[in-house]
Amino acid sequence: MQFPEKHIFVCVHQRDANAPQASCANSGGGEIRARLKERLLEKGLHKTYRVNTAGCLGKCGCGPTLVIYPAGIWYGRVTLNDVDEIIKKSILDNEVIERLDLKK
Amino acid sequence: MQFPEKHIFVCVHQRDANAPQASCANSGGGEIRARLKERLLEKGLHKTYRVNTAGCLGKCGCGPTLVIYPAGIWYGRVTLNDVDEIIKKSILDNEVIERLDLKK
Repeated sequence: MQFPEKHIFVCVHQRDANAPQASCANSGGGEIRARLKERLLEKGLHKTYRVNTAGCLGKCGCGPTLVIYPAGIWYGRVTLNDVDEIIKKSILDNEVIERLDLKK
Repeated sequence: MQFPEKHIFVCVHQRDANAPQASCANSGGGEIRARLKERLLEKGLHKTYRVNTAGCLGKCGCGPTLVIYPAGIWYGRVTLNDVDEIIKKSILDNEVIERLDLKK
């Protein structure tokens, strides 16, 4: 049985559009997840680096959010334009992209 | 902003009851997730050790499955009776429970 070296959880939590709290599905979480999966699949790296659907990650004001384990890199306000850089710097390498870093 | 020291992702992926592959929702993943959350909340540890909904973790024949990060402990065929032991041994401590370990 194969286990991923890195595991990327992307919040796709959906709240009602009128809910007081934001939710990542409404700000593009599903699209971020799909793009990450697609890019890693193209590179044949989708088993080494698994992209996973996640429920609410608890950082609702900063969506779309994701977390990369085991490093514990937390990103917020991710856009589709960030996906290739996330793969290159934070998944293939372990570099934290400062502008997306929720821990800074 | 607070980040969990440990992050437990429980698969609650739902497939149609007639689908060829099993799915964790059909074998009790939702109940495992709920019990873990409830127990950690009772102990006031729900922010230190966050329990999260996850989509398919890719170990569909071994459900219900969960993974604990950053340690990368993978468990399968988890039952409600295992929850207190998982909290005590693998969340509060870092011990791997051999009978649940998918990596062994």
